[in-house]
Amino acid sequence: MIKNDLYLRALRGETVERPPVWMMRQAGRYLPEFIALRDQYDFFTRCQTPELAAEITVQPIRRFPLDAAILFSDILVVPQAMGIDFKMKESVGPWLDTPIRTLEQVENLQVSGAEENLKYVYDAIEITLQKLENEIPLIGFAGSPWTLLCYAVEGKGSKSFDIAKSFCFTQPEAAHLLLQKITDVTIAYLKRKVKSGVSAVQIFDSWGGMLSPEDYQEFSWKYINQIVEALAPETHVVVFAKGCWYALEEMTKSKVSALGVDWTITPELARKFTNNSITLQGNFDPARLHSSPEVIRKMVHEMIDRFGKDKYIANLGHGILPNIPVENAEAFIRAVVEYKN
Amino acid sequence: MIKNDLYLRALRGETVERPPVWMMRQAGRYLPEFIALRDQYDFFTRCQTPELAAEITVQPIRRFPLDAAILFSDILVVPQAMGIDFKMKESVGPWLDTPIRTLEQVENLQVSGAEENLKYVYDAIEITLQKLENEIPLIGFAGSPWTLLCYAVEGKGSKSFDIAKSFCFTQPEAAHLLLQKITDVTIAYLKRKVKSGVSAVQIFDSWGGMLSPEDYQEFSWKYINQIVEALAPETHVVVFAKGCWYALEEMTKSKVSALGVDWTITPELARKFTNNSITLQGNFDPARLHSSPEVIRKMVHEMIDRFGKDKYIANLGHGILPNIPVENAEAFIRAVVEYKN
Repeated sequence: MIKNDLYLRALRGETVERPPVWMMRQAGRYLPEFIALRDQYDFFTRCQTPELAAEITVQPIRRFPLDAAILFSDILVVPQAMGIDFKMKESVGPWLDTPIRTLEQVENLQVSGAEENLKYVYDAIEITLQKLENEIPLIGFAGSPWTLLCYAVEGKGSKSFDIAKSFCFTQPEAAHLLLQKITDVTIAYLKRKVKSGVSAVQIFDSWGGMLSPEDYQEFSWKYINQIVEALAPETHVVVFAKGCWYALEEMTKSKVSALGVDWTITPELARKFTNNSITLQGNFDPARLHSSPEVIRKMVHEMIDRFGKDKYIANLGHGILPNIPVENAEAFIRAVVEYKN
Repeated sequence: MIKNDLYLRALRGETVERPPVWMMRQAGRYLPEFIALRDQYDFFTRCQTPELAAEITVQPIRRFPLDAAILFSDILVVPQAMGIDFKMKESVGPWLDTPIRTLEQVENLQVSGAEENLKYVYDAIEITLQKLENEIPLIGFAGSPWTLLCYAVEGKGSKSFDIAKSFCFTQPEAAHLLLQKITDVTIAYLKRKVKSGVSAVQIFDSWGGMLSPEDYQEFSWKYINQIVEALAPETHVVVFAKGCWYALEEMTKSKVSALGVDWTITPELARKFTNNSITLQGNFDPARLHSSPEVIRKMVHEMIDRFGKDKYIANLGHGILPNIPVENAEAFIRAVVEYKN
């Protein structure tokens, strides 16, 4: 049904002619046509207006031979749907006037039916699918419960999320209740996304790497794995946990279809920690897209050689940076498309 | 000569009755007596006034049974001595009005004799040694060339130091010249510190973990290792490279006396990556000092059991956080001192 199903074949671990390629945050800030829209509509208006979200999603698809689209949205729409009033503050980023710091606040959060508040996302999926005309698969995503707790408790971005960690270590009961509530809403939300037509879902655990291996199991993976267990029977689930190389072995035992890795692990070690048994996605340093197109091409080919062309999805090791020249992003994508074994 | 030489014996890999303990950033912001001084003198005045730096260095020694003191100072005094005019901006942190972005700026930096501009540090060491009365060793430190480049090019702190990385990838010649200049000054500076009486030096590579394993070798370890080679014949060199678990194996082959590790690696893997052959230092999650004193005690004892009491220096996995209760810091230290095999 989907004409170019390379991404799905890689998720199933099939032998392919070359790896599929897409870029985290490909729909967005490095594209002039995105910047034109950004100057007209604020951040959450772009997320919450289905036509805009769909348009932004397909912008990079019009330019580049990508093998998958990812719905333009934000991980914070889930806590918003639960009643946590996130704003996007100019030159600050995510912002909460009243961060979550007490058990009572957690108890008051909406769970049942919260996913109904995200109808605009499901509508955006339907419009996007029409625009994509079955050419390539569409990916849906959500933040990990731990990463969402980080923002909800800290109330803003942070280098080390010490307030969020302190909340977990001093009020573990409240922390676990919050994580469970986010998990439950995320499962309902992702099921609705699948029903709306996405071909795979990716969980972003952007701040997992702030935790020790033991705390990671307790405060992050335990909840991600609930999501994986709930979704895997229905769709492909990909987990990208930045900085969590130490959890790869454990994650490999789960029902995920693929694991994302960042650029601080070599392809060889990533394969070793995952027993050579699972599809991996990554891991080009986003800052390395500042290199010249020739250097990028050479590095991409080396990366594919090292991961191997099968059970592999070429991608960056984190989101593309805003100031990357469009031709450098294109050099990255074309280097994968032109790859010959 | 030094009455309690437990820290030095651990650096030499000798069998000890219990591991030595000190805390990164132990001289500072979590202590009420430090805050009293901070309200009187600004940051670089504290660093540049030998009596103040010495007083701050011994403040935690008066309170706690620590096995080493570390001279109160800052990694930015080295680039300052080279002519890079760092300020400490209220609620921003390190700040440069004119960050280093061109080869010409790098060429203009002072190297020869720059260490003479840091006489206040050597004076602080002499005063501190008088105060310590040979009870415990004094550690001196410096930032890694890469970490100092990060601040010099970015001009301020950052979550990912993308400008600094972009500088390295687009102007490698200027980057390597800057790294070499910082390396040369750091070697001269640390030699003077050793001559002034410190018993060991620690290199802090706070931002090494932003680089891929390959870029780490090229832009960070290559220069750290020059410092290790130059200093190791004269003193113990400890390298703490946050987030650089992937470089531990390579670092183990060098002349370092010990390697610091952060809390994202298990003691077992840290031992494995270093072939069980070298003294390790770390790795208690600083945010875990928010736990109760009883939990801290239990976790510290587990940590020592897992690292083993020999070839081990108990420490945090990064600097102590400003809002940690003094009694929790004390619980950490006492848990090590009271440790029985």
